[in-house]
Amino acid sequence: MVFSEEHEAFRASIRGFVDRDINPYVDQWEEAGIFPAHELFKKAGDIGILGIEYDEEYGGMGADHTFAMIAQEEFGRVHAGGIPMALGVQMMMATPALHRFGTHELKEKYLRPAIAGDMVTAIAVTEPDAGSDVAALRTKAVRDGDDWVINGSKMFITNGTQADWMCLLARTSAEGGHRGMSQIIVERDTPGVVIGKKLDKLGCRCSDTALLFFNDVRVPVSNTIGEIGRGFQQQMSQFIVERMSGAYSKLKKIEWALEQTRDYMRDRIVRGEPLISNQYAAFQLAELSGRLDMLRTYCYAMAEKYSRGEDTTREATIAKLMGSRLCRDTAHWVLQFHGGTGYIEESWVPRFVRDIRLAGIGGGADEVMLQVLAKIDGFTPA
Amino acid sequence: MVFSEEHEAFRASIRGFVDRDINPYVDQWEEAGIFPAHELFKKAGDIGILGIEYDEEYGGMGADHTFAMIAQEEFGRVHAGGIPMALGVQMMMATPALHRFGTHELKEKYLRPAIAGDMVTAIAVTEPDAGSDVAALRTKAVRDGDDWVINGSKMFITNGTQADWMCLLARTSAEGGHRGMSQIIVERDTPGVVIGKKLDKLGCRCSDTALLFFNDVRVPVSNTIGEIGRGFQQQMSQFIVERMSGAYSKLKKIEWALEQTRDYMRDRIVRGEPLISNQYAAFQLAELSGRLDMLRTYCYAMAEKYSRGEDTTREATIAKLMGSRLCRDTAHWVLQFHGGTGYIEESWVPRFVRDIRLAGIGGGADEVMLQVLAKIDGFTPA
Amino acid sequence: MVFSEEHEAFRASIRGFVDRDINPYVDQWEEAGIFPAHELFKKAGDIGILGIEYDEEYGGMGADHTFAMIAQEEFGRVHAGGIPMALGVQMMMATPALHRFGTHELKEKYLRPAIAGDMVTAIAVTEPDAGSDVAALRTKAVRDGDDWVINGSKMFITNGTQADWMCLLARTSAEGGHRGMSQIIVERDTPGVVIGKKLDKLGCRCSDTALLFFNDVRVPVSNTIGEIGRGFQQQMSQFIVERMSGAYSKLKKIEWALEQTRDYMRDRIVRGEPLISNQYAAFQLAELSGRLDMLRTYCYAMAEKYSRGEDTTREATIAKLMGSRLCRDTAHWVLQFHGGTGYIEESWVPRFVRDIRLAGIGGGADEVMLQVLAKIDGFTPA
Amino acid sequence: MVFSEEHEAFRASIRGFVDRDINPYVDQWEEAGIFPAHELFKKAGDIGILGIEYDEEYGGMGADHTFAMIAQEEFGRVHAGGIPMALGVQMMMATPALHRFGTHELKEKYLRPAIAGDMVTAIAVTEPDAGSDVAALRTKAVRDGDDWVINGSKMFITNGTQADWMCLLARTSAEGGHRGMSQIIVERDTPGVVIGKKLDKLGCRCSDTALLFFNDVRVPVSNTIGEIGRGFQQQMSQFIVERMSGAYSKLKKIEWALEQTRDYMRDRIVRGEPLISNQYAAFQLAELSGRLDMLRTYCYAMAEKYSRGEDTTREATIAKLMGSRLCRDTAHWVLQFHGGTGYIEESWVPRFVRDIRLAGIGGGADEVMLQVLAKIDGFTPA
Repeated sequence: MVFSEEHEAFRASIRGFVDRDINPYVDQWEEAGIFPAHELFKKAGDIGILGIEYDEEYGGMGADHTFAMIAQEEFGRVHAGGIPMALGVQMMMATPALHRFGTHELKEKYLRPAIAGDMVTAIAVTEPDAGSDVAALRTKAVRDGDDWVINGSKMFITNGTQADWMCLLARTSAEGGHRGMSQIIVERDTPGVVIGKKLDKLGCRCSDTALLFFNDVRVPVSNTIGEIGRGFQQQMSQFIVERMSGAYSKLKKIEWALEQTRDYMRDRIVRGEPLISNQYAAFQLAELSGRLDMLRTYCYAMAEKYSRGEDTTREATIAKLMGSRLCRDTAHWVLQFHGGTGYIEESWVPRFVRDIRLAGIGGGADEVMLQVLAKIDGFTPA
Repeated sequence: MVFSEEHEAFRASIRGFVDRDINPYVDQWEEAGIFPAHELFKKAGDIGILGIEYDEEYGGMGADHTFAMIAQEEFGRVHAGGIPMALGVQMMMATPALHRFGTHELKEKYLRPAIAGDMVTAIAVTEPDAGSDVAALRTKAVRDGDDWVINGSKMFITNGTQADWMCLLARTSAEGGHRGMSQIIVERDTPGVVIGKKLDKLGCRCSDTALLFFNDVRVPVSNTIGEIGRGFQQQMSQFIVERMSGAYSKLKKIEWALEQTRDYMRDRIVRGEPLISNQYAAFQLAELSGRLDMLRTYCYAMAEKYSRGEDTTREATIAKLMGSRLCRDTAHWVLQFHGGTGYIEESWVPRFVRDIRLAGIGGGADEVMLQVLAKIDGFTPA
Repeated sequence: MVFSEEHEAFRASIRGFVDRDINPYVDQWEEAGIFPAHELFKKAGDIGILGIEYDEEYGGMGADHTFAMIAQEEFGRVHAGGIPMALGVQMMMATPALHRFGTHELKEKYLRPAIAGDMVTAIAVTEPDAGSDVAALRTKAVRDGDDWVINGSKMFITNGTQADWMCLLARTSAEGGHRGMSQIIVERDTPGVVIGKKLDKLGCRCSDTALLFFNDVRVPVSNTIGEIGRGFQQQMSQFIVERMSGAYSKLKKIEWALEQTRDYMRDRIVRGEPLISNQYAAFQLAELSGRLDMLRTYCYAMAEKYSRGEDTTREATIAKLMGSRLCRDTAHWVLQFHGGTGYIEESWVPRFVRDIRLAGIGGGADEVMLQVLAKIDGFTPA
Repeated sequence: MVFSEEHEAFRASIRGFVDRDINPYVDQWEEAGIFPAHELFKKAGDIGILGIEYDEEYGGMGADHTFAMIAQEEFGRVHAGGIPMALGVQMMMATPALHRFGTHELKEKYLRPAIAGDMVTAIAVTEPDAGSDVAALRTKAVRDGDDWVINGSKMFITNGTQADWMCLLARTSAEGGHRGMSQIIVERDTPGVVIGKKLDKLGCRCSDTALLFFNDVRVPVSNTIGEIGRGFQQQMSQFIVERMSGAYSKLKKIEWALEQTRDYMRDRIVRGEPLISNQYAAFQLAELSGRLDMLRTYCYAMAEKYSRGEDTTREATIAKLMGSRLCRDTAHWVLQFHGGTGYIEESWVPRFVRDIRLAGIGGGADEVMLQVLAKIDGFTPA
């Protein structure tokens, strides 16, 4: 992929944002187990990166997907996985369906402030009993005049304690399975929305994740995004963007970890030799580095294809899966070659290991990707 | 291996200790980042398990190594890896050389109370700049009359903030490499011993790990364990016990994790089927379970061989390495199949994953084991 | 495991047999794609190893299973996998049910000459359309007076073109699944037995493997082994012995391959250094060597357990699976580190690689072992 | 990568060549252990594919590297690995240096007929004692007037028994290591060239591989390609093309194997279900399929980069290594899921497994790639 000057300038601006507004604070946010979403998102909105692919009419950049890729790539340089995740939810998960399918009124009310960084958003799909099985969700929205009355609960909601509104997926008809769901915007201050306690996670600790309850929550039917009953399909297309975004954000994270490890192993002298002179270690790192180059090339090609308007469901699935495999192995070796030093939280390694472990679980576990891929590629009964 | 009634009774007593005196408290110890070593070790001493293989003359049980193995095996049922590690240091790492090579006076003064649980002990070998390369250590003990004057520092010292005495390895002559080291007992209250801050670790958080400094610490030469100048060799033999002990303590830990995961996956219904009905997952767990049975059988055979007085350097090295490989893969799949639930610290999974990661690093990293094994088996230039 | 002098003497006698009567000829047998079964089995019978665990009444040794293990272990030193396979069929697969369940008359007629090496035997279970799914077999034996009339076909029959009789598993009642099968001895010269062409295999080329057809083959009902209708169950128990035997026979084969590779890599100088001084290679070989020691220890413990009369279904399944995993990885690295030299059939490597590949397929594929193990260990819906 | 109509037409022509002139004959060539190189290469020359990237002046197509990639990709559809290897030597290994560095006279004499398919060529670099360590080669060319007098031997020479000339790398000065080598064209009929016996290989059996001896072979100095003393450097650049070409030729080979396996598993019914309904198997195949898509994308991007005239040493090294890893795993699972059927030479599987194994060895073993990559990426002491 050949980047234009425009791409490079954009990359530099994201990089500045990360170096100036994020990295100096992540240690304290990690310690606190939360970050100031409104404050940070406002800064992000100010430099215009919360609506990269969105219409300028609503404050977006009107750029193509390759710019969104660059943003996620640079977020990989953030020294805490929770921040890219939180930003990713705002940019790539909670708003794409609204942008694509929402009415002008909804966009004015909810998309414009999300792009400006005045509102923090969340995506409320996963449920305690359904996991990655979206078709099994139970949260119901029953129509009562011009309102939906919503009951149910949602689990693992990123930005869950700070979001001003969430893009909720609920059943709006009695049809089972994939049918009869709708995407509905629910404001957090609506009566009946109960925010459970912030979950204490293995990693991505500075990002708030919550369990949400909906008890007779009344929301206007006009808050429905797109077509009533097409929520599942709209959400599925939103998931593709999420998968791609997840892969993009690992590229520089892994690159950075390999560089740090290389530097550490050059400096660390054991038995009179730098650690890096161990061929076994050097070869493991070289193999990871080669795999990273393949993932990067694949992501670039995927971003270009998506920018051309083509379907990238298969590529997104593969990139998510292979990204996760690479995260797993990088985490293992990076910690392994740091030895005891890497086991101490004072070093960067434990947070890296804890954060990156989510790659194989969040946004559809590896096994879900395998299932999707097996289906696409025909590894199923004819 | 066929266990006798005596073995079984002993196993039951350890199991009672774990269920009664340890497991109910580990959550709070983990939260606090420390456990009450003196209190717990006293209880351990009271039931007689801190000197399993030691002479009854000093309060030991006078049992053979298979009993020590059973103790470590049962410690695997403790729900926090820091406790078996702390107990392991007392039982298998800080005291074996003292028991085997120490004078009667030293044993009376230091071994008896360690066995009774009146004293907490540590092993001070690793140094900030030497890592697992024991031959490179720099801490010096210079003779001045009947005293050693010790200067240097020691890193990653388990029980480091609570130990009453430590078994220190220091250079006592100018010879380089493996020669001219001695094992010296240093009391923690000796002037010049400075205990650095407790290290914040990725896992085994309830166990205190510290950096120690020795500034002109004056200790009687009579505190030397065994022969002056033979410290390295004595320590190496102590390391064999450590490796074996590390493998033993993983057996029930992994078994328990696989059982818990099986139960979780039977209960968890996705798309109308229990998760465990996924063949891919079931096969991964079955493979881990098979590997566990091999490791257990290997450990039992090794324990019997060691009990017969035979050298088990090779077996200990293999068991340590293969135990670590199994820990790595078990941690991966156990978390993977718990999905988001396993990423929340409320579940048992994150602590398991964080604690067990130490297996490939502590007590000689996997690559050290590979190096030792390659040498023993002749995968070196002739 | 501690071997007695009797064990060692027995081992020496097998070793002599291999060195004298087998290894000097395997190259020509491989070239020919067949070996002289009657001639070789007679020699085996003469030194008494075809009935190690069988009653002395029928010419057996009356020894326990540990001796059978030693035989298989030593067969691993044969430089062609087809021979241990052919001998294994005679010793561990075609005759155990006959010995255990057969009538005195049947044993006199068929077991005694098999033990003496006067008859070559085969086991006819697998069918073209059933693969490892024994329950799906279709070959039928319909009773007609005192005879069975047999119709069907059998696939992948080792010793298929040379066997004097085969232990056939057929349906003898209309019950489906695991019920209603019987084990019947069928002589090869019986009218209607048609021996298809010898199959050209990837490896184990000196062993003849054939497709057999049964067209109205008439056999006395008295040729039934054990109880009519219990054939499946009897065969299952015979399979356990086959799995164990498969694992035993890999131990010395892998050991030998690692030693050869070590020696080659010590001698081979690249860039002024012996190949073995590559740490990456040395570590891979050390890891294989460690895994081999675990497999050996596991096999020894299993053999002792089986000798005590205990059930070893689980152990046999694990040993078969883990043996196959180790074969796979050993084959890969052994060839890899020989480079181009190992790709030339003149070296020992290609035959080793081709032969050993069968480990994961024959006698129940790896995935069958995983399925059995998953079931035993409860990785199935409750 | 978006292919033009010209690309597609070219692809169709190669495909026709494979389907018409190669695949119908490979079984007999495999059986014979040789293929008619002159006859086949002439056909290849006739459709113009032996000089894809070469000047039209010498009969080349004058196309860019993406066309060469397409040719290698389509050669992956040949049902015997020996043919793409033989063609690859002619197109990508023996002639690039001649085209790039050779004099007009040399090109007229040797390149034109190679492009036309009138001459078969070979590359003679590897030596019996040097393996992949080119710097260690010993074959010497000593200048005597206007001639080189060549002595030495070369190993593993593809097309070795049929080549009309070979591109030989020899030492032409006493400087050691990488210096003082030259590339010299040696005709096979020159006195003193002795062709050793055709080597019997594990796979790629229809391709002739030979050991060559050079005894006082006298060749004009004007046969030197490029600069005297720069042979190593010219050869290294030729190796880059070889690595890329090796990766390209695996793409459709693996794709085809996965498709065949999928079809087999859909047709094969076990326990009433098609084999492909085993989730464990389906997931393994899906993972391979995803990895293949990454490799393909990477190869396409590399081909484009090389076409732009940029250096692709790193990409070629990564593609070669990762292609080999994928070959290894594909070979394992494809055979595994075919079970016994896949072990019989009658099926396509054994040849596939045997042929593709060369990927990790030929043209620089995996470990050489790791070494190169570790060096490029700085996993070496600073």
